[in-house]
Amino acid sequence: MTPTPTTTPRTTGVPPGAGSSASRQHTLRERNLRLVARAIYEAAPPPSGTTPPSRADVAAATGLTRATVSTLVDHLVAARLVAELAPTSSQRAGRPAVPLVPARRTVVGLGLEVNVDYLGVRALDLAGDVVADAVERGAFHDSDPAGVLGRLGALAADVVTRLEAEGMRVAGARLALPGLVDARTGELEVAPNLGWSSLDPVGLLGLGALPVHVANEAKLAALAELAGEVPPSFLYVSGDVGIGAGIVVDRSLFLAERGWNGEVGHVVVDPAGPRCSCGARGCLEQYAGKEAVLRAAGLPLDAPLGALVAAIEADDDGARDALHRAGRALGSALADFVNLTGVSTVVLGGVYTELEPWLRDAVLAVLRERVLAAPFVELDVRAARAGQHAALSGGAREVLREVVADPVAWG
Amino acid sequence: MTPTPTTTPRTTGVPPGAGSSASRQHTLRERNLRLVARAIYEAAPPPSGTTPPSRADVAAATGLTRATVSTLVDHLVAARLVAELAPTSSQRAGRPAVPLVPARRTVVGLGLEVNVDYLGVRALDLAGDVVADAVERGAFHDSDPAGVLGRLGALAADVVTRLEAEGMRVAGARLALPGLVDARTGELEVAPNLGWSSLDPVGLLGLGALPVHVANEAKLAALAELAGEVPPSFLYVSGDVGIGAGIVVDRSLFLAERGWNGEVGHVVVDPAGPRCSCGARGCLEQYAGKEAVLRAAGLPLDAPLGALVAAIEADDDGARDALHRAGRALGSALADFVNLTGVSTVVLGGVYTELEPWLRDAVLAVLRERVLAAPFVELDVRAARAGQHAALSGGAREVLREVVADPVAWG
Repeated sequence: MTPTPTTTPRTTGVPPGAGSSASRQHTLRERNLRLVARAIYEAAPPPSGTTPPSRADVAAATGLTRATVSTLVDHLVAARLVAELAPTSSQRAGRPAVPLVPARRTVVGLGLEVNVDYLGVRALDLAGDVVADAVERGAFHDSDPAGVLGRLGALAADVVTRLEAEGMRVAGARLALPGLVDARTGELEVAPNLGWSSLDPVGLLGLGALPVHVANEAKLAALAELAGEVPPSFLYVSGDVGIGAGIVVDRSLFLAERGWNGEVGHVVVDPAGPRCSCGARGCLEQYAGKEAVLRAAGLPLDAPLGALVAAIEADDDGARDALHRAGRALGSALADFVNLTGVSTVVLGGVYTELEPWLRDAVLAVLRERVLAAPFVELDVRAARAGQHAALSGGAREVLREVVADPVAWG
Repeated sequence: MTPTPTTTPRTTGVPPGAGSSASRQHTLRERNLRLVARAIYEAAPPPSGTTPPSRADVAAATGLTRATVSTLVDHLVAARLVAELAPTSSQRAGRPAVPLVPARRTVVGLGLEVNVDYLGVRALDLAGDVVADAVERGAFHDSDPAGVLGRLGALAADVVTRLEAEGMRVAGARLALPGLVDARTGELEVAPNLGWSSLDPVGLLGLGALPVHVANEAKLAALAELAGEVPPSFLYVSGDVGIGAGIVVDRSLFLAERGWNGEVGHVVVDPAGPRCSCGARGCLEQYAGKEAVLRAAGLPLDAPLGALVAAIEADDDGARDALHRAGRALGSALADFVNLTGVSTVVLGGVYTELEPWLRDAVLAVLRERVLAAPFVELDVRAARAGQHAALSGGAREVLREVVADPVAWG
């Protein structure tokens, strides 16, 4: 029964991928270790009124014997992936139960990001706590990729050195960029607002052997929402000068071919509308992009978001109308998005998070008019909760998700 | 190491689903049986110039030993899921190789369908051959579901009786309906063109213990394309009076929450356009739906598609302009679809299959203008190949896919 890895003869009709799951097969012990780790991590943080699982709880949840679970938990504790809390008295007879939780400040994931007006590094530990956070403001419109990525790499290297000095291990990093990143190769095709194109950003970071993967900024920001209470599937729409989105299905990013999706900023709102940066007319960006809203509100294009909020709160008609118009246009494009993907929860990220109180009603009204399944589903429009620079947190989470999915590599 | 199924205590923080993969775990033998079955089925029909795999080829492709593969293949042959062809002389030394192929006329899947102007039953065997095909024309606009589904059930029962008399086993059926079907429950929410709503169609078929699942027609039609050469991911767009779509990613339907997606017929082409049946203005259906095209071409709304084709081929300006306008509108809605999903191949099904020669250029031109990733991907617009009543074939294929995925249940 021992699998014998061999090469596939070229003359057979068996496709090359057919045997991949066998050749990558793991031992039963590795599989069980993953199950146990998942049971502990998915239980953290526990819903209110419950305590973290004990070895007995993990045995019950995984269907493994208590002896097996105990051995595997010991392994995860020794590897510093899981920590034991002080025993609690059990309602059942026997020894007090030892609550199991993700370990703090042991293994960490790094989120890195370059955006138009900042670059940053954030490190999260397995418990989801931020253990390092360094954001630098800047102006990276039409910038030199080598210089900017070199600066980010230096910032990240400082963080890594400091965390390692404190006894932590850095599992890897995700680099978020505001552009078209090939999800298969990690290559950046184009980031229009940075003025970057066709480059492999990882080498320019100069982080040596640290595994770094590159992804689109809105996609990683979407994943940051998973730290809070959110349905398993949602559309995360990130507003700024441009408007991007991440499609999350069953708590994973929907990437299809290369992850070049969610371009909601270029959905047609009106073919007779204003010319867009992409060359087409009447794209959503021209109605609900940050600059379009500021312009419609009669504010300078470089006004801070706070100025817009202040104008709305001062009952400025121009500002209120601008937001209403943006909300209707956003609703129209999102109705297409919901009708096409069938995902009924929309999370408003980027500048939309702060503007949500003034956007939500208009967006929801258009969705209710236009989504065909509206009578049968509960449409849900809500503000993002992951906070500032969400792509940094989402990226760090992705690194840690891989650690938990393959704890063997970290044992 | 024996898994002990237990119930999860309510007080623990472990989510109920965390142990599901353990409790559903299969033996190594079952897993290997699936791998072997998959290797044989994915190799059929073999690419030109290759022969079906032998036991040795399957061993090489799966990484299992030849002895293990031989035992498992014997099991699949005895269960009549796999057949052995006449031995061919091998280029290598030793015994001649026995080519392994999916068995013919042993286990079959049924596709069922009710549409506006027909109902039908089709049976496919594991080799993909049609072993029964019964389509009845009808007029089911605003019809009585019990009567129509009873008629379809009787037709299907006749087919089942006949196939069983010939020694075949019917594994199950898929029922295709032109409406909003909940992919989780199989309930039909609404099928506007049939005038049906809120019903559980399976009971009305009266097919007793035969497992029947219900799905949207365009979704099953999309799956029928997988019988031919097609990229692993594509958007299947089915034109008729309404326009539906199926999103296929890595050879599986993308269903997200309940499968209520691909509503490309109601993507906004022009908010100042004509009022649509859904209540909104300027939906794609009003430009590229069958009736909209016939109207624009100056033909009666009940004209057969052939009349439109004849008018175009006779260089009728009205007909050509109608098709060009439909193609531009279709391109606009599909540009949104491609920008939002990131899937770059579009398969034109339904009435669009026959109209593809006059639609393709306009569709492709708009896609090239409007798809943001156009410089980096090859956009591909093509006619569907699965032929008439594709949802019948797609449904039957789905049933058989499950048989192959779980050959243990059929051994």
